[in-house]
Amino acid sequence: MKDFIYNTPTKIYFGANKEEELGNILKENKVNKLLLHYGKSSIKKSGLYDKIVNILNINNINFIELGGVEANPKLSLVEKGIKLARENNIDFILAVGGGSVIDSAKSISAGIYHDFSPWLYNTGEKILDKNIPIGVVLTISAAGSEMSNSCVITNDYTNDKRGFTSELNRVKFAILNPKLTYSVSKYQTACGITDIMMHTLERVLSYDNCYNPLTDNLAFGLIKAVLEVGKIAYNEPNNYDARATLMWASSLTHNGLTACGREYVMPVHQIEHALSGTYDSIAHGAGLAVLWPSWATFASLKDPSRFAELGYNSFGISRNLNQKEAAKTAIQMMKNYFLEIGMPSTLKELNVKKADLEKIANLYTFNGKRVIDDIILVDYDMCLKILENCYE
Amino acid sequence: MKDFIYNTPTKIYFGANKEEELGNILKENKVNKLLLHYGKSSIKKSGLYDKIVNILNINNINFIELGGVEANPKLSLVEKGIKLARENNIDFILAVGGGSVIDSAKSISAGIYHDFSPWLYNTGEKILDKNIPIGVVLTISAAGSEMSNSCVITNDYTNDKRGFTSELNRVKFAILNPKLTYSVSKYQTACGITDIMMHTLERVLSYDNCYNPLTDNLAFGLIKAVLEVGKIAYNEPNNYDARATLMWASSLTHNGLTACGREYVMPVHQIEHALSGTYDSIAHGAGLAVLWPSWATFASLKDPSRFAELGYNSFGISRNLNQKEAAKTAIQMMKNYFLEIGMPSTLKELNVKKADLEKIANLYTFNGKRVIDDIILVDYDMCLKILENCYE
Repeated sequence: MKDFIYNTPTKIYFGANKEEELGNILKENKVNKLLLHYGKSSIKKSGLYDKIVNILNINNINFIELGGVEANPKLSLVEKGIKLARENNIDFILAVGGGSVIDSAKSISAGIYHDFSPWLYNTGEKILDKNIPIGVVLTISAAGSEMSNSCVITNDYTNDKRGFTSELNRVKFAILNPKLTYSVSKYQTACGITDIMMHTLERVLSYDNCYNPLTDNLAFGLIKAVLEVGKIAYNEPNNYDARATLMWASSLTHNGLTACGREYVMPVHQIEHALSGTYDSIAHGAGLAVLWPSWATFASLKDPSRFAELGYNSFGISRNLNQKEAAKTAIQMMKNYFLEIGMPSTLKELNVKKADLEKIANLYTFNGKRVIDDIILVDYDMCLKILENCYE
Repeated sequence: MKDFIYNTPTKIYFGANKEEELGNILKENKVNKLLLHYGKSSIKKSGLYDKIVNILNINNINFIELGGVEANPKLSLVEKGIKLARENNIDFILAVGGGSVIDSAKSISAGIYHDFSPWLYNTGEKILDKNIPIGVVLTISAAGSEMSNSCVITNDYTNDKRGFTSELNRVKFAILNPKLTYSVSKYQTACGITDIMMHTLERVLSYDNCYNPLTDNLAFGLIKAVLEVGKIAYNEPNNYDARATLMWASSLTHNGLTACGREYVMPVHQIEHALSGTYDSIAHGAGLAVLWPSWATFASLKDPSRFAELGYNSFGISRNLNQKEAAKTAIQMMKNYFLEIGMPSTLKELNVKKADLEKIANLYTFNGKRVIDDIILVDYDMCLKILENCYE
């Protein structure tokens, strides 16, 4: 078991209609003037926008607003947010939405106190030392940014998509009302399920094969629960318990819990960032659903042990099957699961051009500057193999 | 799934020799003058006391000290601590020890700002609204107070033992070095294992039978891991991974994670507090090991469903066994486990006098003022039945 730091300061308010407590929660956080940050039209259509504006007004909380965050949140909007926040002496950001809105809020928060672009945090050229606090009203169960220390931004000047981590990226509070996710489409629900599973899969299936039964049981148990409720939520969008379990899983899967004492590097996430950095239309979860089985096939051929544990613990595969067979079966069962919830299984289905695969592999390597050494070494050549293997 | 608030602000520094980072951690916490609080002779024998005093001196951190905390920490020492802390303008408490030392520190911290006795928090007559921050260097895996919101104190003027919960009871940081627990005796290790399991058992085996597969999988997975590593740590005291897993489990089992979305009331803990409140010599874990199977037998006769889940998920009992059979088998397996790690199985072994059972039952009910309505209603009569059933 490896050394670790566990830091999850985000206070979670979980339950139906919990956003109604927002006024008191903001007062507890001593908010003076906030930036209300959100995405496109969905929160206006659902009535959530009006509800929140009403709560802010009733509680005499000053605010300005900035909507328009897109999937794969853009640096140009972040820059606009920073300018607006500085001009209005904003001391808090309220992000109402999913991972994109939260990450955009994190980047605005990170950019306020310094003259340089917050993109330099994403490239690793600068280390975040000061930002302003953020609160969240979550509307989709997927990215887990509401409890994570990460912030993924797309630089729309260069088409580069990168994440950075900092403990300062942890938000102060997150309000999780499962009912707010009833209106999420089947496709976006499935993308979320995939992302939720992947955040733990990429932690637990790592090169680090240390004895760590507690973290393993928590991780495989989380995946097992998501497999179970994912199908229910997909087929019955208004099933409260299924939506609630997905929502709580989305937070726990990316807050660090499922990797305590185990090292990991998340290679599939990094390939996917290059993919959806190149194709803005690709939803992160859909990209992961296509890429993971391809990566897993190569990785399990080198060492099936962790994949076999996934099979035994999350899919209930009998321990009578040896590691190699169990690994193969587990990967096939995961592929089948993605198909059952309507996820694509090839890059072709995602309208990726074959001619672009080299470009994506090159972006993955930061133009030849990065390889990721995991169960298998993922360099340019291996990245290209993984992409070609799931092309059609 | 029920509504919940999840709040775990305690920052965990986990790993071998992590206490060496204490100087920087205290500086990050902007400590001006601290109270070094500890138990009896063990940290002096082990050299930990000298190590910590040295770190404080090297880093020019002012401190005064108060040792002498006993198992079942006493109100009289808490009062001494409050006086000392006020006289010396203490703004931080560093608790070096296990649950007793941490709870004593929590009570001192809670008592500093008000003229009334902090015991009034434990009786529920006062609500905690202000205290000073606490940091922990943990030396035994057991009570989980390092991440919990609870504080259990024994009023040595009245022989009453009571706990109270408050989010202000959460400590700022906890340093978890598994090697510091190598020297914990077999008996105390087993008491700790029992307490660790019981904190999740009493959450997951509750009257609240709601559909909550994520929390169930985390809870039953934690118990399964503790069953596995508990035996290893008991038989090989210097096994790092086993000690590390127990230590991390002790924190997670009592921080709220294993009950998110499920209501619970912990009746066995309350009976045990009456027991060890009456017999100061009884270790909390040993009391729980005796009481739990007796309570579980009565409760499972009324409703075996949750006990069966324990059997299927933590003990690997086949789902071919029906709920009633699985519940009975699970309780028997737990009893056997306690015996294997040297725990007592009767109150007689703990030198409890039969004539005292009514007194204990009366103390449990706060002299007729309390019953706990769980899977079974535990009133005075049922409490007495549970005690008599495990007397010999």
